[in-house]
Amino acid sequence: MAPKMNAEEVAAYLDEVFPQVRGDFVIEEIADRSVRVRMPVADRHLRPGGTVSGPAMFALADVSVYIAVIAMLGREALAVTTGGSFDFMHKPAAGVDMICECRLLKLGRVLAVGDCLMFSDGMVEPVARASMTYSIPPKR
Amino acid sequence: MAPKMNAEEVAAYLDEVFPQVRGDFVIEEIADRSVRVRMPVADRHLRPGGTVSGPAMFALADVSVYIAVIAMLGREALAVTTGGSFDFMHKPAAGVDMICECRLLKLGRVLAVGDCLMFSDGMVEPVARASMTYSIPPKR
Amino acid sequence: MAPKMNAEEVAAYLDEVFPQVRGDFVIEEIADRSVRVRMPVADRHLRPGGTVSGPAMFALADVSVYIAVIAMLGREALAVTTGGSFDFMHKPAAGVDMICECRLLKLGRVLAVGDCLMFSDGMVEPVARASMTYSIPPKR
Amino acid sequence: MAPKMNAEEVAAYLDEVFPQVRGDFVIEEIADRSVRVRMPVADRHLRPGGTVSGPAMFALADVSVYIAVIAMLGREALAVTTGGSFDFMHKPAAGVDMICECRLLKLGRVLAVGDCLMFSDGMVEPVARASMTYSIPPKR
Repeated sequence: MAPKMNAEEVAAYLDEVFPQVRGDFVIEEIADRSVRVRMPVADRHLRPGGTVSGPAMFALADVSVYIAVIAMLGREALAVTTGGSFDFMHKPAAGVDMICECRLLKLGRVLAVGDCLMFSDGMVEPVARASMTYSIPPKR
Repeated sequence: MAPKMNAEEVAAYLDEVFPQVRGDFVIEEIADRSVRVRMPVADRHLRPGGTVSGPAMFALADVSVYIAVIAMLGREALAVTTGGSFDFMHKPAAGVDMICECRLLKLGRVLAVGDCLMFSDGMVEPVARASMTYSIPPKR
Repeated sequence: MAPKMNAEEVAAYLDEVFPQVRGDFVIEEIADRSVRVRMPVADRHLRPGGTVSGPAMFALADVSVYIAVIAMLGREALAVTTGGSFDFMHKPAAGVDMICECRLLKLGRVLAVGDCLMFSDGMVEPVARASMTYSIPPKR
Repeated sequence: MAPKMNAEEVAAYLDEVFPQVRGDFVIEEIADRSVRVRMPVADRHLRPGGTVSGPAMFALADVSVYIAVIAMLGREALAVTTGGSFDFMHKPAAGVDMICECRLLKLGRVLAVGDCLMFSDGMVEPVARASMTYSIPPKR
């Protein structure tokens, strides 16, 4: 299935609907039911020791699945996070961007499920895993 | 079991070890394996429509379980988030503080599990549920 | 909100639609968005040491949330498990029934979320926690 | 990292320590921190319509992560499930074996995290996703 929007189009749409996170995320790739999103390190994401915080990783996973859904369904789509689960496996590397590899395991009529692995840029072992469920209300 | 630290002591300790979140959370009550924490609404937590964001709710649940663990075990304790699960049931009320009621379901030698219900202040139905698991490494 | 079906009616309905689990579960109480369900110990649930297995606890949580949904919505309702999360806190007591206290945190038009604490009968500390999400398809 | 036990050795060990599940699972492959396990369909796993039940999928994910941990650490290792999360994406095909592809995302000193995708044999889209966390107590 081909995405309905490319990275530039989704980025412009995010800027429009979520101006609060403008500049927080860079969409690196959009493909069939999968996306790669970069979160540049920023002071507000950090915890003691310079590592990325849990809430920042939540935000990265959440926005990545949202991007994947919107890319596939188009900008008229609504999507609301209804749940998620997280495993934090390793401490993120200090002062390094986080990369989220996200894949939609389900893209149904009323629910979407995205699975995410998050990496400190350049590392092989994932720092964290997340799955997020979105409810897809009928189109506005 | 009586907590080893009261709300004032834990608040002072949080200011010391997590200066990044200073002012973000108010500890309202600490009891045996349970805490109530308030997150005053702030612009940086909000999403379109004025409701509290998912990452802000993650932060609230995460810090609440941390507070509960530290209150019981004392300030020498280490505690690292290893996982969590979330259900988002309702949209938070716009412009209203969030309250987190947190209870430790387990406080073991190596793992702690906290269960949280989060409310828009003054509402009866919870907005979100979270459980967070912390690993408790040997004392430094 | 008053349940539409009482314990006897739900039990009869379960026997009809899930004959496979007949006798596995006893509905002890049905109230507004909450149920208490007993799982009598049986050899097929056990693990070495005589404790109840993880899959048996999954089954108990899953059926409890299903019972709570059906009790509230009536027997025409459809409900399909879409996800769940579990924390296993303590080893169940050997040779003792399991009790599940379940509360619906959400009973929406398309999704229901139930939160469960499971106890070895007579014990104060919960053995496990579960939350289960059900999708509620349009009525047949 | 090479596994310490191969499929035959782990199968023999499972028969010894979990005689209750003898014949329920076939270890198809063991590699570095990953396993593939088949669950042959059996009447006791089924739900109306002939599809595999949730508890049976829980059992499959749980045993797959256990097998992956034991294969890597050796038969002296202890491993206790402390939590898990599940997404059920599609209805399993009726009367078809389930295949679990499991990968250890973490194999630490005290915790292991395994991520599982479960498929109806021969299908491309996963039926369910699970992650399971195991605590690894000190060796006996």
